Amino acid sequence: MAKETQFVEQIADINADFPQWYTDVVLKTKLVDYGPVKGTMVIRPYGYAIWENIQKELDARFKQNGVQNAYFPLLIPMSYFTKEAEHVEGFAPEVAVVTHAGGEELSEPLAIRPTSETIIGTMMAKWVQSYRDLPLKVNQWCNVMRWEKTTRPFLRTSEFLWHEGHTAHVSDKEAEEFALTMLGVYQEFMENCLAIPVLTGRKTEKERFAGAVATYTMEAMMKDGKSLQSGTSHYMGQNFAKAFNLEYQGQEGGLQNAYTTSFGVSTRLIGAIIMTHGDERGLVLPPVVAPTQVVIVPIAARKGGVIEKCEELKAELEKAGVRVVLDATDNSPGWKFNEWEMKGVPVRIELGPRDIENGKMLCARRDTFEKIEMPLENAAESVKSLLAQVQGDLLSAARARRDSRIVYADDMQGILAGVEAGNFVKAGWCGCRACEDKIKEETAATARVFAEGETAEKCAVCGEKAEHVIVYARAY
Amino acid sequence: MAKETQFVEQIADINADFPQWYTDVVLKTKLVDYGPVKGTMVIRPYGYAIWENIQKELDARFKQNGVQNAYFPLLIPMSYFTKEAEHVEGFAPEVAVVTHAGGEELSEPLAIRPTSETIIGTMMAKWVQSYRDLPLKVNQWCNVMRWEKTTRPFLRTSEFLWHEGHTAHVSDKEAEEFALTMLGVYQEFMENCLAIPVLTGRKTEKERFAGAVATYTMEAMMKDGKSLQSGTSHYMGQNFAKAFNLEYQGQEGGLQNAYTTSFGVSTRLIGAIIMTHGDERGLVLPPVVAPTQVVIVPIAARKGGVIEKCEELKAELEKAGVRVVLDATDNSPGWKFNEWEMKGVPVRIELGPRDIENGKMLCARRDTFEKIEMPLENAAESVKSLLAQVQGDLLSAARARRDSRIVYADDMQGILAGVEAGNFVKAGWCGCRACEDKIKEETAATARVFAEGETAEKCAVCGEKAEHVIVYARAY
Repeated sequence: MAKETQFVEQIADINADFPQWYTDVVLKTKLVDYGPVKGTMVIRPYGYAIWENIQKELDARFKQNGVQNAYFPLLIPMSYFTKEAEHVEGFAPEVAVVTHAGGEELSEPLAIRPTSETIIGTMMAKWVQSYRDLPLKVNQWCNVMRWEKTTRPFLRTSEFLWHEGHTAHVSDKEAEEFALTMLGVYQEFMENCLAIPVLTGRKTEKERFAGAVATYTMEAMMKDGKSLQSGTSHYMGQNFAKAFNLEYQGQEGGLQNAYTTSFGVSTRLIGAIIMTHGDERGLVLPPVVAPTQVVIVPIAARKGGVIEKCEELKAELEKAGVRVVLDATDNSPGWKFNEWEMKGVPVRIELGPRDIENGKMLCARRDTFEKIEMPLENAAESVKSLLAQVQGDLLSAARARRDSRIVYADDMQGILAGVEAGNFVKAGWCGCRACEDKIKEETAATARVFAEGETAEKCAVCGEKAEHVIVYARAY
Repeated sequence: MAKETQFVEQIADINADFPQWYTDVVLKTKLVDYGPVKGTMVIRPYGYAIWENIQKELDARFKQNGVQNAYFPLLIPMSYFTKEAEHVEGFAPEVAVVTHAGGEELSEPLAIRPTSETIIGTMMAKWVQSYRDLPLKVNQWCNVMRWEKTTRPFLRTSEFLWHEGHTAHVSDKEAEEFALTMLGVYQEFMENCLAIPVLTGRKTEKERFAGAVATYTMEAMMKDGKSLQSGTSHYMGQNFAKAFNLEYQGQEGGLQNAYTTSFGVSTRLIGAIIMTHGDERGLVLPPVVAPTQVVIVPIAARKGGVIEKCEELKAELEKAGVRVVLDATDNSPGWKFNEWEMKGVPVRIELGPRDIENGKMLCARRDTFEKIEMPLENAAESVKSLLAQVQGDLLSAARARRDSRIVYADDMQGILAGVEAGNFVKAGWCGCRACEDKIKEETAATARVFAEGETAEKCAVCGEKAEHVIVYARAY
C-alpha cells in the first residue's frame, strides 16, 4: 500500500502552495522540462500531444472561417518595428536580436519575431492590389520569442508556440466584425474543447495590444482565483495598413488603406487547462484534448484470459476512435491508479477475472472519482458517452466555481478584499487612466476586461460617475 | 483566345531555361514569395497546403514507428556545438547568432538551431537513466536556420521548415537498424505520396552529416538531370551520446553510452515535387499532396442548371473526401483551364449543358492531357479511381524517365559527358578521398550515394581497383 501514495506525496498541496503544486505537476507528469537557456522550455511528448489536439481543433475552425495557413520568416529587420509607433514601444524591450550570421556581422540587426504584424503587413501590401484581393485571411502556427525576466513553463517563457491569424479587409465594419467572430470561435473552443469558461470582451486602452484600436480578450479563472488571459483578437483599424502601405484599388477607384486584424492563442492554454481542472492528485484533462482518454488497468493480470480480454477491449475502443492505453506493466494496480490519476487520464477501466465472468467493467472517472460498473457489451459506445459526460461536467463544474467567485465592490477596499480572497471583482470605473493605475498599485489587480452591458453608479477609485464596469483580477 | 495563353507565356521555357522556369513557377503559382531578409522565403497558402499534406502523411508514419512529437528550444548555447568535433566544423560557418536580448548583451551568444542534435542530446541525457528508458524516439516539426550564400526558394533558404527525428537505443545494431527503417519509411512515402522514385543508400565519408558514423540518403532525379538530396537518416554511433553524457544503467549493471540516430526531411520536398513532375505549362501535383485535387469548370455557366449541377457534384466529391474547387468566376473557360493547369491541379472536370443532358462529365488529366468522358452517376467513385490512376502513373513516368538516364562510365571523361547530358552516372571508385575530390573539381558532380551490391573493375579516376560503385551527379 505504501507504493500507492508515492505520487500524491510528490506533489505539493494544491491548497497550501498553488505555485509549487503547478511546478510539480508540469514536471512530474512530464509535460515539460526546463531548457538549457534561461526562460526556455522543452515541451515533452505528453505535453506536446495536448498541443497537437488543440491545434487540430482550432485549425479546423480557422479553415471553416476561410483562414488559410502560411509561413512567414522568423527574422524581421529591426527597422520594421519602428514603423508603427505604439508597436515598437510595446515590443522593443522584449526582442531577441541576431547580429551575426554566417561568420559575419550583419549590416542590419534582425529581430526574432515576438509577433508578426510587421512582416505580414509588409507581405500583404505586396499581394493586395485591388478590392478583389480582399479579404485576405492568413494564419501561421509557429514559435515566437519575447525575452521575459520572470518565466514559468507554459505561462510565460522566452520562446513559446502559438498561432497568429492576420486578416485584411475593405472596411472597418468587416474587419472589426471578423475580430469578434474569431473571439467567438475562441470562446466556443475554450468551452467545448478545454471545458474552460471565459469572460470575453474589450480591454482597456492601457491593457490593449501595442498598435491595436481594440483588443478583445478572453479571461479564464484559475483555481487560485487569478485570471489567465487565454487569447486575444485585435482590431487594428488602419494603423498597420498605413505603416506598411497596405493599399488597394477600391471598387469605385482610388487607393485606400485596408483594415486589419490579428488574433492568437499559445501553448499558455496548456497552463490554463492545468490550473482550471487540476486537483490534489495532479492533472485532470478534458477528454477532447487528453493524449490518453482511457487507461485500462488489468486486475489479477496473471489470471488466464485477463490480458487477452483487456487487449480485446483496447482494440474495440481504438476502433471507435478512443485514445486508449493498456497498462500491462508489472506495477501494482494501486501504483498504476496513482500514476494515471496524476497524469489526468479522464477515465480508468479496471478489468479483472470476476468482471469478465460477469461481463462487466469498472469505470472510474478522474474528475469526480465516481466508479461506475458498465456492461462489456457495447463498451465503446458506453465509454464514449461517459467521456462526453466527463467533458460536459468539467465545464459545468468550472463555470459554477468561477461564477461563485465573481463579486462586486464599490470602493478600493472592496476590490482589494475581493482579489485577496481569490475573486474576480466587478466595479465601476470613471474611464480615466489614473484610477486604473491606482488600482494596480494598491491591489496588484488589473482591469481584465470590460463587463459590457453592466452599469455602476460611481468609480470605485475616485467616486466620480462610472462610465463602465470593469472586471478586476490578479493575473498571470 | 488571347487570354488563354497568358499564363503559358509568363513561364520560361522548361527546356531552354530550367532555373528560370523553376523561379517563374514557384512565384507565379503563389507557392512562395521572397521574404524581406536575404535568403528567406514566405511560404504562401498554396505552398503551405502542400507542406501540410506532407506533414500529415509523414507524421502518421512516424507515430506508427513509435516516434512521439515534442518541441525543443530554438536557441542553443554556442558552447554546445563545440562538444562534438565534426559537428562544430560542419555547422559553425552557417550559424545565425543572437547576442542581445531584452535590451542587454547576453553573457553567452546563442545559436539559432541549424539542427538539434546537441540540445536534444542534452535533454535525452537528463531523461534516460536506465535501459528501461530506451529506446527513446522523439521528433519535432520546426524551423531551422542555416545561413547560406546562394539561396533558392524551397531548395536552399536561410530558414526552412522541417522535421527532425532523434532516437536513442541500447545497441549499435538496434540504432543502425532504426536509421534504416526510417530510410525505408521515407522511400515508401516518396514513392506513394509524392510519386518520386529515389535511389537510397549510404553517403561517402566526405558527404555524410557532421558527426555521423553513417548517413543514409535518398536521391531523386530532377527533370534537368540533377540530383536532389531529398532526405537523410543518420546513424551516430556513440558520438553524440559521449559528447553529451547520454548514459544509461545497463540491464547487467554498469553505465553505458547509448547509440543515437537522427533523420529529417524539409520543405525542400516541395522543390522536388516541382522539378520531378512539372512541365511547360507549370506545376503538376501528385493527388495525394495536391491542395486541390479536382477543379470543376462550368461550361456555358449562365445556362440554367449548370452551376447548380456543378455545386451538386462538388458537394458529392467533398463528401467522398476529395479536395475540390468549383471555379465559378467570370473568367472564360479557356482562361480557367490555363490557370488551373499552371497550378498543377491533377484533374479538371468540365461540365456544360450538353454533358448534363447526357449524364456525363469530361475529365481532363493534368499529367497526360488525356480527356475522359465519364458518367455523372457514381462520380465520386470514378474521380477517386482516376486520381489513384494519375498518382500511380506519375510515379511510373518519373521512374521510367529516371531509369533511362542512369548511365555507366569507366573514366573521368565518361563521367563528365554523362552528367553534362543530364544523367546519373555510375562508376567505380577506389575509395580514396583524392579521387572523390578530383571528380567534383573536374565535373562539378558529387558522389550522391553508394550503389550497394554493384561492382566495377577499376576506379574511374585513378584506375586502381574499385572497391565500390558510386552514383555521381550534379546536385542541388
